[in-house]
Amino acid sequence: MTQHILAGGAGFIGTNLITEIRQQEPHSKITIIDNLSNPSQTFSPLNSEIDFIDLDLANSDLLLEKVCHRLDSSETTKIWHLAANSDIPSGIADLRIDLHNTFLTTVSLLLLARQLRVETFIFASSSAIYGYHGSTRLTESTHPLKPISNYGAMKLASEVILSTHFASYPNQLRIFRFPNVVGPPATHGVIYDFINKLLKNPAELHVLGNGSQQKAYLYVTELCSCMYQLSQTNLKQADSPIFNIGPTDTASVKFIAETVRDLVSPTALIKYGNADRGWEGDVPRFSYDNQKSIQYGCIYNQTSQLAVSLATKDIFAQLTH
Amino acid sequence: MTQHILAGGAGFIGTNLITEIRQQEPHSKITIIDNLSNPSQTFSPLNSEIDFIDLDLANSDLLLEKVCHRLDSSETTKIWHLAANSDIPSGIADLRIDLHNTFLTTVSLLLLARQLRVETFIFASSSAIYGYHGSTRLTESTHPLKPISNYGAMKLASEVILSTHFASYPNQLRIFRFPNVVGPPATHGVIYDFINKLLKNPAELHVLGNGSQQKAYLYVTELCSCMYQLSQTNLKQADSPIFNIGPTDTASVKFIAETVRDLVSPTALIKYGNADRGWEGDVPRFSYDNQKSIQYGCIYNQTSQLAVSLATKDIFAQLTH
Repeated sequence: MTQHILAGGAGFIGTNLITEIRQQEPHSKITIIDNLSNPSQTFSPLNSEIDFIDLDLANSDLLLEKVCHRLDSSETTKIWHLAANSDIPSGIADLRIDLHNTFLTTVSLLLLARQLRVETFIFASSSAIYGYHGSTRLTESTHPLKPISNYGAMKLASEVILSTHFASYPNQLRIFRFPNVVGPPATHGVIYDFINKLLKNPAELHVLGNGSQQKAYLYVTELCSCMYQLSQTNLKQADSPIFNIGPTDTASVKFIAETVRDLVSPTALIKYGNADRGWEGDVPRFSYDNQKSIQYGCIYNQTSQLAVSLATKDIFAQLTH
Repeated sequence: MTQHILAGGAGFIGTNLITEIRQQEPHSKITIIDNLSNPSQTFSPLNSEIDFIDLDLANSDLLLEKVCHRLDSSETTKIWHLAANSDIPSGIADLRIDLHNTFLTTVSLLLLARQLRVETFIFASSSAIYGYHGSTRLTESTHPLKPISNYGAMKLASEVILSTHFASYPNQLRIFRFPNVVGPPATHGVIYDFINKLLKNPAELHVLGNGSQQKAYLYVTELCSCMYQLSQTNLKQADSPIFNIGPTDTASVKFIAETVRDLVSPTALIKYGNADRGWEGDVPRFSYDNQKSIQYGCIYNQTSQLAVSLATKDIFAQLTH
């Protein structure tokens, strides 16, 4: 039996990942460690099927003290590190936010992983580590890596410290570079924001930036199924443990704004800003090469536009139920 | 008048950098911030020509509180970030050592730099950020960067967070990737260790590793003159602020052991280990391409072997005077 530790597991992705793990391994033990800074609506700390530990992961002393004795050290253990700051602009204003929530959480969990001798350490990284590369399709070996937000920098710093630690044992590490992930139960993100804005003011939708931003969007259940698949498959000789996860196509912010408007308030006027990006530190455009993940068994059934359309319906239902 | 803040400036490099700055700018103000964890023999906190602040740089709240009011915010200010863990094997045993001394010092100083609106932030990085690349000559754009020690990982993480912050103002940043730097007043390093070993036991010199390690060595006064030169020269359009500093040739550990033996105890027996490296996390071999620094005015008068020979005499004198 495997023990799964989901760090930051009370949020949007964790909620969906639990469903995936439960489907694949009905009898495995799941422990969530989370400070409940941004929990999903459906998360309940009283759920008897999971073990829940309320803790600030950046505090490594407390983490080691509180967690080790609650786990069975004879069991195979996997750590899924999903904890991070999710408000990127706030992290640009104050460097300490991503230091604390995005990087120090990684250091703490690496110390825990060493103590527990975990079988696999799975890290949720981000397309933000690449920075802006124009129309280049991003592969896992695209370089130089030049993040433009502190969030991206602290995700990349996390990759560095994990890659260094697992350099001799790459099969024990997985680094997944997420695109924009969408779906319910949303806690943040562009679709969630647009729906909330239109529910407050059905007459107008103000969009940050000029709407031309083009990015990859992935529906959350596809992400979780892909993460699980990649965590179960051994690396081929000489392959690195880093994977882009996501479709190769993109959707524009204009498409998202129109999709949300058509569903939530069809007569609303959409007002765009002038900048080519939503905020300082936002990458205006990226697209993924996903061949490596497909070679390892990932399946992408949906385009970015389809993922956005599905997620818009689901998040609207979530917010208005 | 320029104010120079030397973070970690009480150590080996700082002591030499002060001499360089004093020669170039006799009237500039120098402030050293250091926790005196590894001060050079010649450093005195009572020296009336420098302002000294005894502080753990990793504590950003304390740093901002204690330092800002002691500086004149109307003066041009440069920060030289020389603070780091200097005991690499200890940092491999405990990740928190390099987290604290090598990375969190960078975060704190970046916060200080923003508050003081400094003109230039100069960061002492390391060849350790490259990891092992066989016989490839390392240029500033060699990739992938794959450090094998936590020291190298936290230096690289520091580069990432600094590069992200200064992405729009690269001319305000300099990142210098140091080779092995040698000379007096030594506080650590292979020559210093070999001399101390032979002073304790003149009959034998035990060498970690098989002596085949080949690295670039630079005499500390050449380093400081080069750092000063590069900090004064504007970047050419589209050039990155990253520079390798050092000669292109290398010296072997066997050469160093023999050089030290010949001077300190000519009849001593040198006993080598079996490994191709001195310790886990040690890179067995690297050589630098230094064309970029030369194009910006750096001058390298000494080969690695000459630097080792000179430093051996000087450090022997320092340790026995």
